[in-house]
Amino acid sequence: MTPPSFTSGELADRFGLELRGDASLDIEGVATLARAEPGQLAFLANSRYRGQLGDSRASLVVMRAEDADAAPGAVLIAKDPYTAFAKMAALFERRQAREPGIHPNAVIDPTARIAPGAHVGPFVTVGARSVIGEGSVLGPGCIIGEDCVVGDGCELIARVTLVTRVRLGQRVLVHPGAVIGADGFGLAMDSGHWIKVPQLGGVVIGDDCEIGANTTIDRGALDDTVLEEDVRLDNQIQIGHNVRIGAHTAMAGCSAAAGSARIGRYCLIGGAAGVLGHLEICDRVVVTAMSLVTSSITEPGEYSSGTPLTDNRTWRKNAARFKQLDALARRVLAADKETR
Amino acid sequence: MTPPSFTSGELADRFGLELRGDASLDIEGVATLARAEPGQLAFLANSRYRGQLGDSRASLVVMRAEDADAAPGAVLIAKDPYTAFAKMAALFERRQAREPGIHPNAVIDPTARIAPGAHVGPFVTVGARSVIGEGSVLGPGCIIGEDCVVGDGCELIARVTLVTRVRLGQRVLVHPGAVIGADGFGLAMDSGHWIKVPQLGGVVIGDDCEIGANTTIDRGALDDTVLEEDVRLDNQIQIGHNVRIGAHTAMAGCSAAAGSARIGRYCLIGGAAGVLGHLEICDRVVVTAMSLVTSSITEPGEYSSGTPLTDNRTWRKNAARFKQLDALARRVLAADKETR
Amino acid sequence: MTPPSFTSGELADRFGLELRGDASLDIEGVATLARAEPGQLAFLANSRYRGQLGDSRASLVVMRAEDADAAPGAVLIAKDPYTAFAKMAALFERRQAREPGIHPNAVIDPTARIAPGAHVGPFVTVGARSVIGEGSVLGPGCIIGEDCVVGDGCELIARVTLVTRVRLGQRVLVHPGAVIGADGFGLAMDSGHWIKVPQLGGVVIGDDCEIGANTTIDRGALDDTVLEEDVRLDNQIQIGHNVRIGAHTAMAGCSAAAGSARIGRYCLIGGAAGVLGHLEICDRVVVTAMSLVTSSITEPGEYSSGTPLTDNRTWRKNAARFKQLDALARRVLAADKETR
Repeated sequence: MTPPSFTSGELADRFGLELRGDASLDIEGVATLARAEPGQLAFLANSRYRGQLGDSRASLVVMRAEDADAAPGAVLIAKDPYTAFAKMAALFERRQAREPGIHPNAVIDPTARIAPGAHVGPFVTVGARSVIGEGSVLGPGCIIGEDCVVGDGCELIARVTLVTRVRLGQRVLVHPGAVIGADGFGLAMDSGHWIKVPQLGGVVIGDDCEIGANTTIDRGALDDTVLEEDVRLDNQIQIGHNVRIGAHTAMAGCSAAAGSARIGRYCLIGGAAGVLGHLEICDRVVVTAMSLVTSSITEPGEYSSGTPLTDNRTWRKNAARFKQLDALARRVLAADKETR
Repeated sequence: MTPPSFTSGELADRFGLELRGDASLDIEGVATLARAEPGQLAFLANSRYRGQLGDSRASLVVMRAEDADAAPGAVLIAKDPYTAFAKMAALFERRQAREPGIHPNAVIDPTARIAPGAHVGPFVTVGARSVIGEGSVLGPGCIIGEDCVVGDGCELIARVTLVTRVRLGQRVLVHPGAVIGADGFGLAMDSGHWIKVPQLGGVVIGDDCEIGANTTIDRGALDDTVLEEDVRLDNQIQIGHNVRIGAHTAMAGCSAAAGSARIGRYCLIGGAAGVLGHLEICDRVVVTAMSLVTSSITEPGEYSSGTPLTDNRTWRKNAARFKQLDALARRVLAADKETR
Repeated sequence: MTPPSFTSGELADRFGLELRGDASLDIEGVATLARAEPGQLAFLANSRYRGQLGDSRASLVVMRAEDADAAPGAVLIAKDPYTAFAKMAALFERRQAREPGIHPNAVIDPTARIAPGAHVGPFVTVGARSVIGEGSVLGPGCIIGEDCVVGDGCELIARVTLVTRVRLGQRVLVHPGAVIGADGFGLAMDSGHWIKVPQLGGVVIGDDCEIGANTTIDRGALDDTVLEEDVRLDNQIQIGHNVRIGAHTAMAGCSAAAGSARIGRYCLIGGAAGVLGHLEICDRVVVTAMSLVTSSITEPGEYSSGTPLTDNRTWRKNAARFKQLDALARRVLAADKETR
């Protein structure tokens, strides 16, 4: 397999970028500024790192116009160098070829429909009435339950489980270990014993969503759990039943949204952050890492909870005082009154 | 497959509920008040939502007697409408038929014993000396290691791993991706290098437990890790070795109990909450979401830690002061003394 | 299978420990002091539990010299009794025999190389150009993608996924459900829509590492994600792309390190603790459970964040005051000034 190669001029043309320097440089890969070798493309997205330009061995660097003076070699000019770099880097990605066809050991229910251009790998099962779209890939060990739809151009890398009534849009990418459409956590107490509330809904995942490794998305109790288009979930995320996540929202690893929470569009939920059930978060909200959203958020902006990290000795002293905080505040307010 | 259908009168009789209204209404499904169509049953569990009754198209609604006046149509009266609804909804659940028998590609150790009425799906392995009980289901991709027991009427939906020495009681439900009986995290430092402490115990799961998707329960180091009957674990939960969880306790998604923790009966552990190792929590304790239990709890009640969410700017100011909290408290107390 | 048996004298000789008491006792297993039966070895690592010695039925107990007077029976003397016990306990571990050879249903790419002494279980796939080392075990359901290397003497218990470009050193132990080498979470915003930043790096895992059940380790964007030798990760951990973890560091369950974080050697990261991206933590740092590391740590020691658990009523009052903390502090400081 010959690695792909492009000249600096070809890259400029293909992505509509201004080239400053030699148009005939052969570019055969991408790297960080610090690690790039001759023949590689790097990027400078943050002007703080301009100092690295002098030492970099990269043949070509994509950056903003205002940083270009500091570059000793060939430069591509982009308004958003990171985005431009991401697009160019995709040219050099060596992706596994997945030929259309169904592996002979796959177990396909006779009522399932697999598009002729789909790839179904080894040790895959597809359940009754499920549909796999054109050009989609079910990698090894994927389990597609009953009444599921995988749209066109989806890729389920490996060992993905769609339990039941899960509908993926087009070009959805799901990483290994993800479980979509398991029972929501619905319980009712009946004479001292739990009984299970049937989970009759499904899951709807919009076009261009990405679901991380070992992430779980439960199906709805009555209505569906919904991810609108272009939602991006990192690894180890938990999405409870009947959650709705707006388009273009991204959630970082280990975050969670409890049952019936509604998260708006263009939100960024930080790592290990949590959203309690039945809350609503409006569009364009940022929640910082390990924060807990305990009431609805109606204004765009950045939100946080938690306390800062300190050495344990200092933390112990301050944390002990947290237990007295209300009492302390009362003293302060009382003293304040006295002196007035 | 004809969908199930019951008259309003049949439902009242079957569940011992008082019916107010027409006994001959055909009920073919369940839904929320807001989304119900004619022919569907809905519920009103919280009087706050009484206002929705007028707009609902549900043919039949289950609710408490005190809310019934507000209902324009047929009503079932229940002391606990949510529990009653859960039971009725189960009638309408379309569950996958899993015929008894062993899939031809399953790999069963000759010393394993599979009950004749059990279902063993494709791509399943069952290890030496393991036993699968009557009416139990091992969905696709399940891996049952050595010396495991799956009781009668269990359902391992798909891709569940019982590593070794795991004993499930009766009617245990396990969701995809769960790993039960992996090595506990036992390490000892030996001349600057970790050595592994062998994990010789097992896991015992009581009757009627439910284990969520991608949840992990480690086996004990010497004694067993134990879940008593009717324990309900949501997704993405981590249970360390030698933990013991009392009957009827429920833990929400992403929560965790570290090694040798003991949690009582009828506890509710909130999402992403944690319990440190070797602690004891008595019966009927509620721990709110993302709280960390750092010492034993001996009184029933609700417990919390953490700080409230605010906009990030406000949070930064307050969080900075947290670092000075002990110093501030000292000043307040000193000033207080002076003025006395 | 006869269970292994050793005399007390043989154990003393084998591990270089001083024996006080009868050298001919038959030891056939290990247990806790509280549960041991005659014929079993127990340990006393913490002098606090000396009181249990009198009641224990253990035939032999390993402990420090200073505790030995309190022991009624035979004793092995060790400087570090827990480590000594761990080593002896390993003798009694009944481990599954995994014969060399490739299960007939495994799907191996013709360009993959499997050492003759390796064990490849049922429902395993090994992708193009991947190499499996001598004496290594791929348990049932493991998926090895393209361009992976599994060193000698590794054990992938079951259902482990190495996605692509993952290199394991020697004697690496990986528990079920772990996903190593999935795409890092790299996104760039392009005209209101996310585009994916290709993840072209790999993952390098050093010798003697252990990776817990359902843990995820993403591959690097450009360079590799790296775990140095003897790193120990518990279950449900998330390691972002391009993280580097120093040798002998241990991370407890549900903890996480975000992209490009660097954690030093001999660190201990507590359960559910988090490390933000691009930070650096020096060697020998302890982070307590559920703490969030929000800036680099340059001094060894123990670090914490969070607030203590209290009953919910008290917590609510104190938490409400946290929102006023800056204002309160200002009042205190102002009052202080006035009185000076």
